[in-house]
Amino acid sequence: MTEAERLSELARDFHRRGWALGTSGNFSAVIEREPLRIAITASSLDKSRLSPADILEIDADGVLLKPAQGKPSAETLLHVAIIRAGAGAVLHTHSVWSTILSDYHIGAGGFFIEGYEMLKGLEGIKTHDHREWIPIVENSQDMKALASEVRGMLDEFRNIHGFLIRRHGLYTWGNDLDEAARHVEILEFLLESVGRRQMMEPQY
Amino acid sequence: MTEAERLSELARDFHRRGWALGTSGNFSAVIEREPLRIAITASSLDKSRLSPADILEIDADGVLLKPAQGKPSAETLLHVAIIRAGAGAVLHTHSVWSTILSDYHIGAGGFFIEGYEMLKGLEGIKTHDHREWIPIVENSQDMKALASEVRGMLDEFRNIHGFLIRRHGLYTWGNDLDEAARHVEILEFLLESVGRRQMMEPQY
Amino acid sequence: MTEAERLSELARDFHRRGWALGTSGNFSAVIEREPLRIAITASSLDKSRLSPADILEIDADGVLLKPAQGKPSAETLLHVAIIRAGAGAVLHTHSVWSTILSDYHIGAGGFFIEGYEMLKGLEGIKTHDHREWIPIVENSQDMKALASEVRGMLDEFRNIHGFLIRRHGLYTWGNDLDEAARHVEILEFLLESVGRRQMMEPQY
Amino acid sequence: MTEAERLSELARDFHRRGWALGTSGNFSAVIEREPLRIAITASSLDKSRLSPADILEIDADGVLLKPAQGKPSAETLLHVAIIRAGAGAVLHTHSVWSTILSDYHIGAGGFFIEGYEMLKGLEGIKTHDHREWIPIVENSQDMKALASEVRGMLDEFRNIHGFLIRRHGLYTWGNDLDEAARHVEILEFLLESVGRRQMMEPQY
Repeated sequence: MTEAERLSELARDFHRRGWALGTSGNFSAVIEREPLRIAITASSLDKSRLSPADILEIDADGVLLKPAQGKPSAETLLHVAIIRAGAGAVLHTHSVWSTILSDYHIGAGGFFIEGYEMLKGLEGIKTHDHREWIPIVENSQDMKALASEVRGMLDEFRNIHGFLIRRHGLYTWGNDLDEAARHVEILEFLLESVGRRQMMEPQY
Repeated sequence: MTEAERLSELARDFHRRGWALGTSGNFSAVIEREPLRIAITASSLDKSRLSPADILEIDADGVLLKPAQGKPSAETLLHVAIIRAGAGAVLHTHSVWSTILSDYHIGAGGFFIEGYEMLKGLEGIKTHDHREWIPIVENSQDMKALASEVRGMLDEFRNIHGFLIRRHGLYTWGNDLDEAARHVEILEFLLESVGRRQMMEPQY
Repeated sequence: MTEAERLSELARDFHRRGWALGTSGNFSAVIEREPLRIAITASSLDKSRLSPADILEIDADGVLLKPAQGKPSAETLLHVAIIRAGAGAVLHTHSVWSTILSDYHIGAGGFFIEGYEMLKGLEGIKTHDHREWIPIVENSQDMKALASEVRGMLDEFRNIHGFLIRRHGLYTWGNDLDEAARHVEILEFLLESVGRRQMMEPQY
Repeated sequence: MTEAERLSELARDFHRRGWALGTSGNFSAVIEREPLRIAITASSLDKSRLSPADILEIDADGVLLKPAQGKPSAETLLHVAIIRAGAGAVLHTHSVWSTILSDYHIGAGGFFIEGYEMLKGLEGIKTHDHREWIPIVENSQDMKALASEVRGMLDEFRNIHGFLIRRHGLYTWGNDLDEAARHVEILEFLLESVGRRQMMEPQY
């Protein structure tokens, strides 16, 4: 399966699960490292109907390589920043739980997810006895500024597997698309779990 | 795909997602502007089994054009009011979250949804830094009175993308059916998000 | 479609929607009135795999007519009581919301659902401005006693469309299976709505 | 259907229902009692794509019998402990509700589920008037220690149908895979019910 086929299949699956409603969400994967070529979803499309023809190819600066015409996702610079930091695939989803937790915890700049077995689904985590920091950045429509903030954050927190943008959603990634897709499932599960847990009573 | 095919397909999809259970929900789209002809769901049908044959054609006063026999949706006058104000398609759904928020906020006549990235899925909204007013009108079985109230509301709030009827559901619209369907997804997502957010603690 | 085909199809659909998990739920429909013959689900079967062969035929006393061997649902006497009171089909589901509301409101013997547009999906209800009483009876394994209590309740509350058994589930009915199935959808929607509404703050 | 076919089908179904996301969950069934041979899911696989080829065969000590290469589930020793105590099949799922209730009630070492009709879906339970103890054990990555604790717990509570591991998930079992799968459905329903019930107000 090509990157374009897999990306469009994932987009439709995430739409069906409520993580990429409307035109929300954008998804990318490295095609080649040297020189860097990235497959990425086009801007503003309905994710329930995405087809491989809706996947564009960009370079290391986010510039369109092919087809001749097309508008890459508005958040292309964030994908490029995360891929340059080492990821092979980047998935950005908008779920209800990521949206509301990104707002609830904005004052602390993030929150920990700690002690859950499901954390072992994150690459490199071998035990539930782990504290995973989920940073939250303020939302912005200035993509250069936001990408710069994300670069700083990735530099500061080297072991994270994802982050939230306030009232916006989740970014996660992996060495390849399968790993990144697994991280979406794992983090969405954990976000719903900590969100519901906290509604039962204060957790700590 | 004809308007009738697309409307019946949407109805079945919304039923499956819990937004048009039983015989609830009604849906319309402009076929032609001059003179105005509108495709609209017939009254009181099970939305899980809607077929193109269940879509009727009405004129600018909501009077049945064809087929010879048929009963347009009881809420036809509301659809006509919204279409006359400019919409190309109108979708009315009954979800749990729209129902309970329309009751919770009735005292204030509506509520704002503010600061969510997903707002950009609404036509014309370019930034999350937007305050979307969701007006709420009291429910009534007097459709002439309710249509009159809706006309006044559309006149007062010119930039809204939808409104709620108390303990009843959501009306939204768009320039065409695709845009209106996207607005349903976007607003249902936002209603669930603000509803759950508020259950974590007071928001403001 | 025969009653047996329709009943087994409904059972699988309700299982899929979480309203008849495990072997829970039982469903019946009148085949003939004079003399009374009823199609009913056999006892203790997995509803996800129900087939028309799992539907039995019983008489007005709940006695098996055919096939020669078979064990009608343990709650057969309740179905017979409701059908004798006039129903053409009876559906009993076990959802999370019916289960917890039947426990929460047991002290008052029931609760009202009032002012919801969706109430109009109940047979004979023409306006949202309606108070629907949902009686709750204590659960029991003595089916004769429970059927007797249900007969008394149907006699006392002549306009109800369903009732709950405590920590057990919903009984609803209709003139035929389509109407009864619509009542399940309508009441499940309303139970979830009043349940979630009440978690936002006291309703009255 | 072979054990391997049924186990991989169950894994895909549980993934779809949100009970085995990512690589979480593991499932086993006895192939033969004397000498003991067990079919069990391989370690760390994506449950949405499990196929019969991903099911391994182990002996009474959890040692791989076939194929020649393969890594049985990390929690193999827990499956073996439960099967040696009499079960014919063991299913371990990770749902949101089992995860958060296992954390909420850890201080008491478990909690009772009491008075629910759905309890009758558990093998041997004939009435809703039953108190089912759900023990909770602390999570650990030391599988020998955890298996030892589970053996002690099964010895102490002889009539339980499942237990939780803190912030981890549910173990349940049955005489065969059908019974074990029914127990998953029943217990997941009950966990969601008691979790939501408790959020309405204190239960006892």
